[in-house]
Amino acid sequence: MNQITQHTIQVGELANGQALTIPVFSVGDRDSGPHVYIQANMHGAEVQGNAVIYALLEKLKSARLAGSVTLVPYANPIGCNQKSGEFTLGRFDPITGENWNRLYHDHSHLLAEFVTRYKHESEATIRSEFKKLLVEQTEALLSGPQHQLKTGKRIALHLQHLAHQADFVLDLHTGPISAKHLYCPEYAQESAKYFDIPHTLLIPNEFDGAMDEACFCPWWQLSDELAAQGRELSTLVEAFTVELGSQEHIDLAEAEHDADSILSYLTHKEVVLESAYQPQPITRYACYLKDYVAVYAPMGGMVDYQAPLGGHVKTGDSLATVLRMDKYCEGAALQTVTFAQEGIAILHFASASVNQGTELYKLFTNYFEL
Amino acid sequence: MNQITQHTIQVGELANGQALTIPVFSVGDRDSGPHVYIQANMHGAEVQGNAVIYALLEKLKSARLAGSVTLVPYANPIGCNQKSGEFTLGRFDPITGENWNRLYHDHSHLLAEFVTRYKHESEATIRSEFKKLLVEQTEALLSGPQHQLKTGKRIALHLQHLAHQADFVLDLHTGPISAKHLYCPEYAQESAKYFDIPHTLLIPNEFDGAMDEACFCPWWQLSDELAAQGRELSTLVEAFTVELGSQEHIDLAEAEHDADSILSYLTHKEVVLESAYQPQPITRYACYLKDYVAVYAPMGGMVDYQAPLGGHVKTGDSLATVLRMDKYCEGAALQTVTFAQEGIAILHFASASVNQGTELYKLFTNYFEL
Amino acid sequence: MNQITQHTIQVGELANGQALTIPVFSVGDRDSGPHVYIQANMHGAEVQGNAVIYALLEKLKSARLAGSVTLVPYANPIGCNQKSGEFTLGRFDPITGENWNRLYHDHSHLLAEFVTRYKHESEATIRSEFKKLLVEQTEALLSGPQHQLKTGKRIALHLQHLAHQADFVLDLHTGPISAKHLYCPEYAQESAKYFDIPHTLLIPNEFDGAMDEACFCPWWQLSDELAAQGRELSTLVEAFTVELGSQEHIDLAEAEHDADSILSYLTHKEVVLESAYQPQPITRYACYLKDYVAVYAPMGGMVDYQAPLGGHVKTGDSLATVLRMDKYCEGAALQTVTFAQEGIAILHFASASVNQGTELYKLFTNYFEL
Amino acid sequence: MNQITQHTIQVGELANGQALTIPVFSVGDRDSGPHVYIQANMHGAEVQGNAVIYALLEKLKSARLAGSVTLVPYANPIGCNQKSGEFTLGRFDPITGENWNRLYHDHSHLLAEFVTRYKHESEATIRSEFKKLLVEQTEALLSGPQHQLKTGKRIALHLQHLAHQADFVLDLHTGPISAKHLYCPEYAQESAKYFDIPHTLLIPNEFDGAMDEACFCPWWQLSDELAAQGRELSTLVEAFTVELGSQEHIDLAEAEHDADSILSYLTHKEVVLESAYQPQPITRYACYLKDYVAVYAPMGGMVDYQAPLGGHVKTGDSLATVLRMDKYCEGAALQTVTFAQEGIAILHFASASVNQGTELYKLFTNYFEL
Repeated sequence: MNQITQHTIQVGELANGQALTIPVFSVGDRDSGPHVYIQANMHGAEVQGNAVIYALLEKLKSARLAGSVTLVPYANPIGCNQKSGEFTLGRFDPITGENWNRLYHDHSHLLAEFVTRYKHESEATIRSEFKKLLVEQTEALLSGPQHQLKTGKRIALHLQHLAHQADFVLDLHTGPISAKHLYCPEYAQESAKYFDIPHTLLIPNEFDGAMDEACFCPWWQLSDELAAQGRELSTLVEAFTVELGSQEHIDLAEAEHDADSILSYLTHKEVVLESAYQPQPITRYACYLKDYVAVYAPMGGMVDYQAPLGGHVKTGDSLATVLRMDKYCEGAALQTVTFAQEGIAILHFASASVNQGTELYKLFTNYFEL
Repeated sequence: MNQITQHTIQVGELANGQALTIPVFSVGDRDSGPHVYIQANMHGAEVQGNAVIYALLEKLKSARLAGSVTLVPYANPIGCNQKSGEFTLGRFDPITGENWNRLYHDHSHLLAEFVTRYKHESEATIRSEFKKLLVEQTEALLSGPQHQLKTGKRIALHLQHLAHQADFVLDLHTGPISAKHLYCPEYAQESAKYFDIPHTLLIPNEFDGAMDEACFCPWWQLSDELAAQGRELSTLVEAFTVELGSQEHIDLAEAEHDADSILSYLTHKEVVLESAYQPQPITRYACYLKDYVAVYAPMGGMVDYQAPLGGHVKTGDSLATVLRMDKYCEGAALQTVTFAQEGIAILHFASASVNQGTELYKLFTNYFEL
Repeated sequence: MNQITQHTIQVGELANGQALTIPVFSVGDRDSGPHVYIQANMHGAEVQGNAVIYALLEKLKSARLAGSVTLVPYANPIGCNQKSGEFTLGRFDPITGENWNRLYHDHSHLLAEFVTRYKHESEATIRSEFKKLLVEQTEALLSGPQHQLKTGKRIALHLQHLAHQADFVLDLHTGPISAKHLYCPEYAQESAKYFDIPHTLLIPNEFDGAMDEACFCPWWQLSDELAAQGRELSTLVEAFTVELGSQEHIDLAEAEHDADSILSYLTHKEVVLESAYQPQPITRYACYLKDYVAVYAPMGGMVDYQAPLGGHVKTGDSLATVLRMDKYCEGAALQTVTFAQEGIAILHFASASVNQGTELYKLFTNYFEL
Repeated sequence: MNQITQHTIQVGELANGQALTIPVFSVGDRDSGPHVYIQANMHGAEVQGNAVIYALLEKLKSARLAGSVTLVPYANPIGCNQKSGEFTLGRFDPITGENWNRLYHDHSHLLAEFVTRYKHESEATIRSEFKKLLVEQTEALLSGPQHQLKTGKRIALHLQHLAHQADFVLDLHTGPISAKHLYCPEYAQESAKYFDIPHTLLIPNEFDGAMDEACFCPWWQLSDELAAQGRELSTLVEAFTVELGSQEHIDLAEAEHDADSILSYLTHKEVVLESAYQPQPITRYACYLKDYVAVYAPMGGMVDYQAPLGGHVKTGDSLATVLRMDKYCEGAALQTVTFAQEGIAILHFASASVNQGTELYKLFTNYFEL
């Protein structure tokens, strides 16, 4: 049995002095083998990842580990506890509107100097030195003048500090009402086949503030920079955002499947050895991020969502019917929203009530089998 | 074909001068037969009633009507449009916290004088004069000094003004995540059998500010008062709150069934004649309001709701499992919430995230077959 | 120097397991002399009371005390930290809409039995036994089945448990934008003269869920009940809600004045001895709660509040001008809200933007000098 | 007397079908002289601009106009009416968190082709053709597929469509609690002297989504692009964000001064002729945007803001004292936040309650006299 240890980090303080803390679980030997970082619930309503971390811990207890895993549930103690009515208003800072998952730090300015210095070193040295650099730079930001750190940035940096220590990073999210899908950097496309997730978004090397990007962009840029200088080096770190389904929902049974899917990936990466965790024989579809299309409500109204999630939509199919009682006597109470392409419906808005311009659906287009 | 007409009433104004309006639909002959009032969406997130009103209008077009029906969707133009994150924060006034469905006016102070004056009159006279009195008194409040009317009261009075003109009143709501159920005044228990709703709450003659109570309490008090003076008169008006299922959800197909259920009741009341609408042969359970029990979360945490809605819970059954990752290393990550009685689970909280003391479930206890 | 001690009580738990705690400060000897309970910030935005408690602690250090004082800042750890935009949304539970200061428990059902048993006992015995009863009954509610306690009730009961141990209770609040005023039970009118607060509301013996009422109603009822049985006993406990001014505001200098005002009352009550704290020679006005009039916005719009707080308004005076740009071309861009009585403007709404029916102003009418 | 006309534009629809409309006022002759566009209240709580538009309309009635002015109060009908508690939650879309003033469209991709085509044309042609292009391109976005337009973008484009027709654009905002200040593009520094605003922020040619940037960036880029090709052309359009003071506040008297200040600028620009509107002889300070420094709360707590707005802060001065009652017995209840530079305090946070990392103050540093 592997031992699981728990400690707590403080990532902020509220107005009455209450400390904002996050529990951190560790398993395995940090001194040998690759290191994995898994966090959940950065967006307050996206809670299922906590249940997946519970299931992972239970399974990791008895796994044969060739490395180590750090697991962080409840990653955002503000978002987690921000209620507005019955639901959790945890997607953005309630004071500033900033998306909690767009505040990670961009370390790309470190690359030029690092490459100059280490371009002729071994892969092992580059891996360990660049990791060290990212971790130290994050520490420096955290220990700098406190009056320069805004709330969400401080939380993000604390998490990023843990994540930069890892070779494999999984940020567990959910959509609003959503099919399972995976955000995967283009270079790691092969890895997507080891998750039991039927839909993969392939994302480019562009930093937009999210945890996965914060973790893979520097390493991807490092490969690119080295390649430009004639040194071939694969991208040494992989990072994914795993979208587990719908928000505001805990399903302990489904969490077991999701844990198995993650353990299948970690088995492939030889963090878990001699395990029975294998990818399921499902068809996996992918599309590029530029082909991930949002359909905004062309009118305000109340929506009967009709395109099933994960379902393949044909050109001209109806996505939704919008009820507009004010137009009843004009004979226009029911209005249809159609889709003008082929696509796969991945997620839809969480509420039936939409303003004109609310994001109704997001769909894969120009998709292909992985 | 019956003709459906539409007009608009103004029930308030916003800060930029925007008028708050509500569409009002009418069908049938107001001069003959009973009058029915049906409204929906007083709570902003409880939208399915709008779809039921749509389905009712479609079916009423071709019904044989012995009376008339007024239908009001989008009854609360503030609640309807109050977003906070993806969800609709429409249960209470966002400024004051007042539940929109607790602001109707109590006309009980009118009874003593009315009874003195009309106690020897015919049922028809009593019905028409008391209706007239309620309508006029509501008008008087609306046309009194505007600086004495708060926002929610003005909306409520406009709706109450329409409702007091009716003999049968249906206020269409939903629970958070909920089985269908009906709030029915105790004296109208027989009528509950004509709705296709398996669960009925029998409520006493106590005014707590809701629309159904505002409509039936005065008439129930009238019967009681007359009885006390030796005159037997059945309660002449019936009013119900119909809980259609879960909030934030539009299902046009289900709305057809709910419309049929309402038409079955209206057929029984001979508002709709020679119709095929019949109550379905289902088992109907009822309990008294005092036996409708709330279970509050005994600890904070993230909840996997396990008792199925409409399901019968035995003493000691688990209602929910609460995930508490912070207690993982104590072996207390999963905690069970059990129920110490027999009951029927009617609704549960809309989100998996709960504070200690959040209402988790509501259940019928001491229930019986209707 | 008196020693100040601090301990912490837990009053709830959030979804991520975070404990909701409140700091409790104590000074003086609990075994001799009267006991005082002072709390602040039950409503999240009403923070100035915390500064007053700070100033009180500083001054109590060197006071000569004949009794003891318990002081509780940050009384509501949810309300305190509930942000929505820049402001604190702390007046009501964000999930249920319930006003945090309407959830205290009504112990009036205990009276009949108590009076029967103790009506012939000494004042000292009645005081100590009734206190004991209230404290024990509150403990019983707190230690009963946890699934019967909703979030706000649990917080309220923990505070009430502390408050019932006291002879003098002060609940520190603020208005939105407000002049200082005092809620004072009618029987304690003389005590109002010892506070440096120019406006006093005299409130009747009616329990509506607030802390002050929870503390004085049982004792007032006790006096009434004993009087009905021929025993004269003054009301042994006094409780006030002290409205310190405007919300969302900390003013450390003003807090010193408010602390002096409270110490003047405590000197009068001989909790503080040989002190220099004396009531200031100001004119004090009072009105009965029934004469405390709200003026709701007769139209939506944006408001230039013109009646100064604490200012005396004459019949027909303008309270506010409402801007309505949509009516500019009708010549109706500026609309005046007048007051049809004499009054003293006590508070107005916190924002310039109002819906039709928003509470604009509250005013004393039929006021008199204390 | 100049005639003022009013029309209404629709910029969206809510869930119940309610149209979102904005009133548009026009004065002067569009066929001769420069055109001015002034809008207010894009952020819901920033209402004073509406009063300034009222005052401007009153004054423009009797002004001698050499051009025309379009004035748009209540520019954001969602933000305007979004209440959360007593305050207006109007800085960002409550559904998405997007800042309403970061959604304007960037037209910079149009430049290359335009410059190629028009670089040898007259200034008048360039002005009229580029204006036409910007207006047409905005129209094209508005009339394109409705399912591609999100809520805030649609509102922004409607306003931008009006603004691109103007030579001078003023977007009226306020800070939270704030001194008056002006956002001014670096090239228009001279114009800042004609406003009665003591603090000017000089902003670079970088588009970040705001209205002022949307209006001046294309013209500034046009000058730059033409200069690169050897053609000297001053930047033909000026656009400013005018910060009128504090939010949630209407002051009709102060609005007169602000209207005078704007008319002084318009007199300088010869839109208003022979007027008495002159800039006041005040000292005007400026700093570059890069020197506009935010101070985030180094700890959570409740803040007594001490640096006066508009006041000059010396190195080491205290900005604020933070109350932390939980640290009272450690002797750390009061903590001071100092500033390590010279600066001018421009604005501070609207509430006394702050989390660690909340923006406390913003200050000019490296400021200079204009």
